[in-house]
Amino acid sequence: MHPDEVKVLLRGIEAGTTTVDEALRALSALPIEDIDVARLDTHRELRQGMPEAIFAERKTPDQVIQIARVLLAKNAGPVLATRVEPQMAERLKAEFPLARHHEDARLVVFRAEAESRLGRIGVVSAGTSDRYVSEEAAITAEAAGAEVDRINDVGVAGLHRLLAAQDHLHAAEVLIVVAGMEGALASLVGGITASPVVAVPTSVGYGASFEGLAALLAMLNSCAAGVAVMNIDNGFGAAMFALRMLRTMHR
Amino acid sequence: MHPDEVKVLLRGIEAGTTTVDEALRALSALPIEDIDVARLDTHRELRQGMPEAIFAERKTPDQVIQIARVLLAKNAGPVLATRVEPQMAERLKAEFPLARHHEDARLVVFRAEAESRLGRIGVVSAGTSDRYVSEEAAITAEAAGAEVDRINDVGVAGLHRLLAAQDHLHAAEVLIVVAGMEGALASLVGGITASPVVAVPTSVGYGASFEGLAALLAMLNSCAAGVAVMNIDNGFGAAMFALRMLRTMHR
Amino acid sequence: MHPDEVKVLLRGIEAGTTTVDEALRALSALPIEDIDVARLDTHRELRQGMPEAIFAERKTPDQVIQIARVLLAKNAGPVLATRVEPQMAERLKAEFPLARHHEDARLVVFRAEAESRLGRIGVVSAGTSDRYVSEEAAITAEAAGAEVDRINDVGVAGLHRLLAAQDHLHAAEVLIVVAGMEGALASLVGGITASPVVAVPTSVGYGASFEGLAALLAMLNSCAAGVAVMNIDNGFGAAMFALRMLRTMHR
Amino acid sequence: MHPDEVKVLLRGIEAGTTTVDEALRALSALPIEDIDVARLDTHRELRQGMPEAIFAERKTPDQVIQIARVLLAKNAGPVLATRVEPQMAERLKAEFPLARHHEDARLVVFRAEAESRLGRIGVVSAGTSDRYVSEEAAITAEAAGAEVDRINDVGVAGLHRLLAAQDHLHAAEVLIVVAGMEGALASLVGGITASPVVAVPTSVGYGASFEGLAALLAMLNSCAAGVAVMNIDNGFGAAMFALRMLRTMHR
Amino acid sequence: MHPDEVKVLLRGIEAGTTTVDEALRALSALPIEDIDVARLDTHRELRQGMPEAIFAERKTPDQVIQIARVLLAKNAGPVLATRVEPQMAERLKAEFPLARHHEDARLVVFRAEAESRLGRIGVVSAGTSDRYVSEEAAITAEAAGAEVDRINDVGVAGLHRLLAAQDHLHAAEVLIVVAGMEGALASLVGGITASPVVAVPTSVGYGASFEGLAALLAMLNSCAAGVAVMNIDNGFGAAMFALRMLRTMHR
Amino acid sequence: MHPDEVKVLLRGIEAGTTTVDEALRALSALPIEDIDVARLDTHRELRQGMPEAIFAERKTPDQVIQIARVLLAKNAGPVLATRVEPQMAERLKAEFPLARHHEDARLVVFRAEAESRLGRIGVVSAGTSDRYVSEEAAITAEAAGAEVDRINDVGVAGLHRLLAAQDHLHAAEVLIVVAGMEGALASLVGGITASPVVAVPTSVGYGASFEGLAALLAMLNSCAAGVAVMNIDNGFGAAMFALRMLRTMHR
Amino acid sequence: MHPDEVKVLLRGIEAGTTTVDEALRALSALPIEDIDVARLDTHRELRQGMPEAIFAERKTPDQVIQIARVLLAKNAGPVLATRVEPQMAERLKAEFPLARHHEDARLVVFRAEAESRLGRIGVVSAGTSDRYVSEEAAITAEAAGAEVDRINDVGVAGLHRLLAAQDHLHAAEVLIVVAGMEGALASLVGGITASPVVAVPTSVGYGASFEGLAALLAMLNSCAAGVAVMNIDNGFGAAMFALRMLRTMHR
Amino acid sequence: MHPDEVKVLLRGIEAGTTTVDEALRALSALPIEDIDVARLDTHRELRQGMPEAIFAERKTPDQVIQIARVLLAKNAGPVLATRVEPQMAERLKAEFPLARHHEDARLVVFRAEAESRLGRIGVVSAGTSDRYVSEEAAITAEAAGAEVDRINDVGVAGLHRLLAAQDHLHAAEVLIVVAGMEGALASLVGGITASPVVAVPTSVGYGASFEGLAALLAMLNSCAAGVAVMNIDNGFGAAMFALRMLRTMHR
Repeated sequence: MHPDEVKVLLRGIEAGTTTVDEALRALSALPIEDIDVARLDTHRELRQGMPEAIFAERKTPDQVIQIARVLLAKNAGPVLATRVEPQMAERLKAEFPLARHHEDARLVVFRAEAESRLGRIGVVSAGTSDRYVSEEAAITAEAAGAEVDRINDVGVAGLHRLLAAQDHLHAAEVLIVVAGMEGALASLVGGITASPVVAVPTSVGYGASFEGLAALLAMLNSCAAGVAVMNIDNGFGAAMFALRMLRTMHR
Repeated sequence: MHPDEVKVLLRGIEAGTTTVDEALRALSALPIEDIDVARLDTHRELRQGMPEAIFAERKTPDQVIQIARVLLAKNAGPVLATRVEPQMAERLKAEFPLARHHEDARLVVFRAEAESRLGRIGVVSAGTSDRYVSEEAAITAEAAGAEVDRINDVGVAGLHRLLAAQDHLHAAEVLIVVAGMEGALASLVGGITASPVVAVPTSVGYGASFEGLAALLAMLNSCAAGVAVMNIDNGFGAAMFALRMLRTMHR
Repeated sequence: MHPDEVKVLLRGIEAGTTTVDEALRALSALPIEDIDVARLDTHRELRQGMPEAIFAERKTPDQVIQIARVLLAKNAGPVLATRVEPQMAERLKAEFPLARHHEDARLVVFRAEAESRLGRIGVVSAGTSDRYVSEEAAITAEAAGAEVDRINDVGVAGLHRLLAAQDHLHAAEVLIVVAGMEGALASLVGGITASPVVAVPTSVGYGASFEGLAALLAMLNSCAAGVAVMNIDNGFGAAMFALRMLRTMHR
Repeated sequence: MHPDEVKVLLRGIEAGTTTVDEALRALSALPIEDIDVARLDTHRELRQGMPEAIFAERKTPDQVIQIARVLLAKNAGPVLATRVEPQMAERLKAEFPLARHHEDARLVVFRAEAESRLGRIGVVSAGTSDRYVSEEAAITAEAAGAEVDRINDVGVAGLHRLLAAQDHLHAAEVLIVVAGMEGALASLVGGITASPVVAVPTSVGYGASFEGLAALLAMLNSCAAGVAVMNIDNGFGAAMFALRMLRTMHR
Repeated sequence: MHPDEVKVLLRGIEAGTTTVDEALRALSALPIEDIDVARLDTHRELRQGMPEAIFAERKTPDQVIQIARVLLAKNAGPVLATRVEPQMAERLKAEFPLARHHEDARLVVFRAEAESRLGRIGVVSAGTSDRYVSEEAAITAEAAGAEVDRINDVGVAGLHRLLAAQDHLHAAEVLIVVAGMEGALASLVGGITASPVVAVPTSVGYGASFEGLAALLAMLNSCAAGVAVMNIDNGFGAAMFALRMLRTMHR
Repeated sequence: MHPDEVKVLLRGIEAGTTTVDEALRALSALPIEDIDVARLDTHRELRQGMPEAIFAERKTPDQVIQIARVLLAKNAGPVLATRVEPQMAERLKAEFPLARHHEDARLVVFRAEAESRLGRIGVVSAGTSDRYVSEEAAITAEAAGAEVDRINDVGVAGLHRLLAAQDHLHAAEVLIVVAGMEGALASLVGGITASPVVAVPTSVGYGASFEGLAALLAMLNSCAAGVAVMNIDNGFGAAMFALRMLRTMHR
Repeated sequence: MHPDEVKVLLRGIEAGTTTVDEALRALSALPIEDIDVARLDTHRELRQGMPEAIFAERKTPDQVIQIARVLLAKNAGPVLATRVEPQMAERLKAEFPLARHHEDARLVVFRAEAESRLGRIGVVSAGTSDRYVSEEAAITAEAAGAEVDRINDVGVAGLHRLLAAQDHLHAAEVLIVVAGMEGALASLVGGITASPVVAVPTSVGYGASFEGLAALLAMLNSCAAGVAVMNIDNGFGAAMFALRMLRTMHR
Repeated sequence: MHPDEVKVLLRGIEAGTTTVDEALRALSALPIEDIDVARLDTHRELRQGMPEAIFAERKTPDQVIQIARVLLAKNAGPVLATRVEPQMAERLKAEFPLARHHEDARLVVFRAEAESRLGRIGVVSAGTSDRYVSEEAAITAEAAGAEVDRINDVGVAGLHRLLAAQDHLHAAEVLIVVAGMEGALASLVGGITASPVVAVPTSVGYGASFEGLAALLAMLNSCAAGVAVMNIDNGFGAAMFALRMLRTMHR
């Protein structure tokens, strides 16, 4: 609750237009919606201006459906679910006919922004096998109203592919770089550009990638100063970080 | 080399004002300064507009001195050295009387921006023991011309300290959150604010912090969507990332 | 065997009312029930006053059934099985019509205490996805006769949800805090309350949670002094620890 | 701030005895002491009734001295510093003549409770080499007013030593078990007693103890249900947890 | 080839009874059977006097069948296959009607010693869930002609079960101790007995057992001097080690 | 683009036979084929003279088919796909009737070199269970025109098998050594021969092999100086490395 | 206490020659010597027939001296201290003029067996750098009365050195194999001999040996069935294990 | 011993020119020099044609001196010591006036090849801080008679530095790439060139490089097919591998 609102409330008591009980109720009215399956933070959109997302892993379809209903009702902004397995996606599409399922990205978008008005994010991926993560980032960002420029398959084994895409790199306000194996692409992009680079390691790789650990450590140790890192396979989080930046830039 | 410069060069040949040899030389003239101890990338400032930094660990004082000399001569911007041990700092201050040593932050700043004109970074730290990292971030950012708001000692064990500092959190364009032990502060700040949050784990902690691994993993797994993470104790990198953001915002 | 019992036995020999052979037999009569599939410690309830639990993983349904039968026959207290897969639960319910299966918690309760008379445990969970662990804790505690107050979905991304539940936190004699991802909730609860906090990391999370390792390390490094930690996903163990505390408090 | 205090404040405005400005100031007056080197949480004692502790690692003697002064002035309860190296201890004793240095435990106690009135903690250690941790626990607990029963050198290689100490184990309201190497002592004590067992792994051991990791994992996996675990070498934290229990029992 | 055999060969040349070519052929005749799917070491039995074992994992049933045929034909001793999945066991039993499948132990014994004449091995297990490993050890040892005393379910949570089995422990010439979770049983047995103790960690346990790593590290760090350790779940290897001891004792 | 080609281009402008626009187009024409599913590096064969390989894991059959088509059309050399699951292999064979599926090696070879003219690679494996990796190496090398000598099943448990194969070891220009478990074979081969040894750890082994980590670390620490190591199970990479060597030797 | 002793005691009561109080005292008289610095298990020698060892790490010289005095007084067998730093060794030699310091092995032997009468242990080491561990094993074994055959510097890089020592390997009743780096020597010795092999990894090696982890994992995964493993650098433990074997063999 | 030599020996017996005893002596005369401190493999040079190296870590100066003496006397080729600390280097230079100490590389070269006649190795390093490893590789290679082209400071943060050095990369027969932090340079060089690339991770980096683990994993996962990897900081091993290649090429 904003201090100014508190002041108004207190002045109301002083003026006799508000009773103490009314004020107490107002002070304790927290933006929480308590449904059976979850305690929802319905003011998060107001507070952070970002899409409401449901982490579907380890939830039942019924839980996801109930949560999605409340989120769609209580806000006007974008709502989506991440880590949705095909079977659950079927259930969700049956329940929400307008929802759109992006199978590669394991996303279901219940409601997206109608227009792109937030600025431009470059989503760079190293190989075709990394697209399940880069698409998670791209579609999340688009759902929230950002413009996305996909720069796919520019891994470091064929360096000229990346060099040929330099104009795209320079045009973006923020870059999300998605790579598995040795994750070197993040350092390359960081060295070429002046924009902030958000690196996302993927779990793509042979044995000693240890499910993405190799790329994660490589990105954390990037010699190109100013590369920040997300959790393994967390394309959604990278988009959320980029959206925080764009909203701050454009506020 | 920018395509337009190439075009000008080629038109010179066409016009007969440039010889093929001159053009070849120009095409191969790369912005590298090759001194005995290093091969310096003297155009990095132009390309990325950020301070030139010398990673002093495992270098001799003589190597750092030679590199600093070239960087100071070839650019006009800020120049600093990171991970400087006290003994080396003595040598550097003797050689560069204008250099300033920040002992806690293990930094030597050879030249800083005169004015703050880049925007405001909030540097948040969990405890007094984390300041060697938060100061590395703060001083690097200030040297590059950013305004820094230090919000120290707001670790989660005494939550009201953080809540009392909310105005400071909301006023920053980007937040750097520095914490050791369980690193929970990054999630808290991420949940309260809408700004981008760059988390820096520190190696402060008892046994099973494993030199910062606990905080690193915690920050990578933050449930507050949109928190990006730097390497352990890498305050310098966090500042560089924030500077990339501010420069992009203000370009 | 209690020293006083030994004294009685020896006095019996001295008095001639007990033969040496009888005494030897008594001294070696250990509270062990040796059935084909297991060597059961039938005095554990007397010794520790807690529910007898069968760890069902890697056991066959037949083994669990035989063990459950002996435990139900030899004691009067609560008996339950943990880590029960749905298929095994079917077999157990067919065999023990009074048994109750809690699918989310992977528990089968063969016999529970009729009344709650042990004191109050607060079971706090960070998100809906963590409930398979928090319910394991809550149902185990209830089966043993504790009163359980469930405080669900109060993860740190929406801090006001936790602040709104403070009365519940203060009312409990011991708090079990269940969280995956970065596990920060344990530190928050530890900072707000004065009660003992038992933290349980869950294996919920993206890649670098490494199946709960991130939350485990975070909780072990909690900056809120006085937080103790259980194994990953070990809701049962947390309940058992809390029950030891309540029994000691109320003895 | 307690809801009842808020009510009183609001009624004061309603009655005209409190001005809006006074109320606003009261509402925002947070228990924080902001000195140069730290932002101190001076109400923690009231909130949690436990000793104020300064984690001395990575702090300068001056920082510790300043913080200790404020804590001694603002509260009446026990104050101590943990992880104090001998050199710093000399400085602290010079500054605070009443302070007591426990070298083995790396503790400096600035002020302790005069009486033991909180109940009895059993502090069990496996070997002489583990005493630097068990003493950290014991002295912290004593400083806070608990009675401590030390049960030293009862490691599992000579089992009869532990069996001979059973009466001591049963007499304690809570047991702190300190062990390095394979950490088996925690399971043994957990199996013998009905009291809550807080296990503290130490970093004592040969190569593959990996600085206490072996004992930590062993304790987390204890087959004696109801053993909770602290960070490696964290005797202080174990005492704090036990104190939370005793205070809850005796409130 | 034994030096004496070489001497005989050379003397044969000297005497003219052996040609150089015959000698060369003899010198190079190595005990290798090269079949399509494997290069078999058919003298291993002579050299080491132990059962020939086929590690079935990642082999096809056909490969196992071909190898088993050669081993049965070339030696007279015991032959068995380890890590046999049920489906492969069906194929093997169809092909070798005399083979015996031990499902729990994942073993198929093609041929066993008829008599027990090697000495006595005690196989101790902590819980019913560990039997898939303890039985692998026990059956391998029996197939090679050792007498096995099974001491099951004597985990440390109910210490009196182990104490009651002390006579069995003392009677064995070598003890194999199988335990998961915290693996403390190995230290206990090592402390009670004077016999050599071979510890086998199992992958039984909750999350932070990390598939047996916790028990492995605990056993390597046993404070009972003189406990040696096998790989996780390697009951077969423990039996082979014990057999080496018994053969050496009885040679 | 080779410097000489640039020179020709510039001289053409000087001579008036090339326009500036034609030259700019030529300079920017990069050897990239951008199809929907991938951005292909079609000059890699020219640049490196090695087979084009498609990493099939996490790709759909359609993606692999489209990429294979372009690679077959744009080059004349060998083309293959690695990590092909049986189901995908069916699809590929249906689409490319000339393709050959090597099930054990998880390879599909779309086009191979007709002749062996590159030199001889020795592919050494420790056991039958390691062949899925050694065959990946051998078939890749053969597809590229190398002669392969397979030396299978010479693991260190039966040392004479390796000693009997010494002539084969000495005859190869480069040796690929494939072993799981403790990976000792690489050190043995390195000690016996003077040729370069490329070691490939496999994920074959019991628990504490940790999916090949044990063999990987062992090979990296080989006391036979001059053993280089590939990723776990990466037979393909080992072949590619050996091919680089043979091409360099024979250029 | 042996059951027969209990019987005698009870018959004494029955016969009136022993009072109940005397019997109770006898039953509770445990072989523990409680001195200020430790609780000593003075019957361990009787129980296990092995040298009493003091682990000197993290103990003060005074603590070691007091413990050594009691052990020398209460038993007649060998007494030694392990992990003794040079400075402490000076103190111990000053106090115990008959003590012998073995600097390489970090051992101080206070009292050794006069004769070798236990059998023969072969102690095999891979390189000169591993001798600090192999000597710890050899000297411990000799102090306890075993005959030791040292077979040094037979690492696998020069295989003929090991083959030349085969007679020594076959002559030992038990083999202790000490190796760092990749630890392959244990597998080699295990493959050549039929005796039990106790492998000790050392912390000798380059970076990715991770202080002995590489050799430890390699030895645990030995393909030579029947190799058991000790903790990293634990030569003492290997000797103790071998002594258990020899005593069992010769009892 | 070569089969042809055996044949000659046997024919000598047949012909009566060699006695059986002479032949036996010859057959058992192994190329081992057994001095007090080591068992030297004096035929390694003949067998492998590479420099003899003494791993100085954990050896005393006396041990290194004795070993160096034998190696210099028994062979004519290069002899060097690795991992030599400054103090030991002083001792060695005093003893061997012709020895040369390379402090950065921690090498002492006792005797080097007079001429470069083996071919050309490119030694590429990412930064000045990595030179302690790249110089170890370069000087070892030069001592053995290879020509070395040093390509320093071409890390990926300033990509044009590497591109400007392409001619050097193409001219080498084998490339050793030395890099710390994220180790991306190996992938870049592998993508640009067709030569074999031997990657050496260094322990240079911030916290989560974990002493070189990050670079090691990155290099093992290189997406540029055909990059082989050495142990962390093992410049010596990389040179030995390259020398094996050059000798094979030029034999």
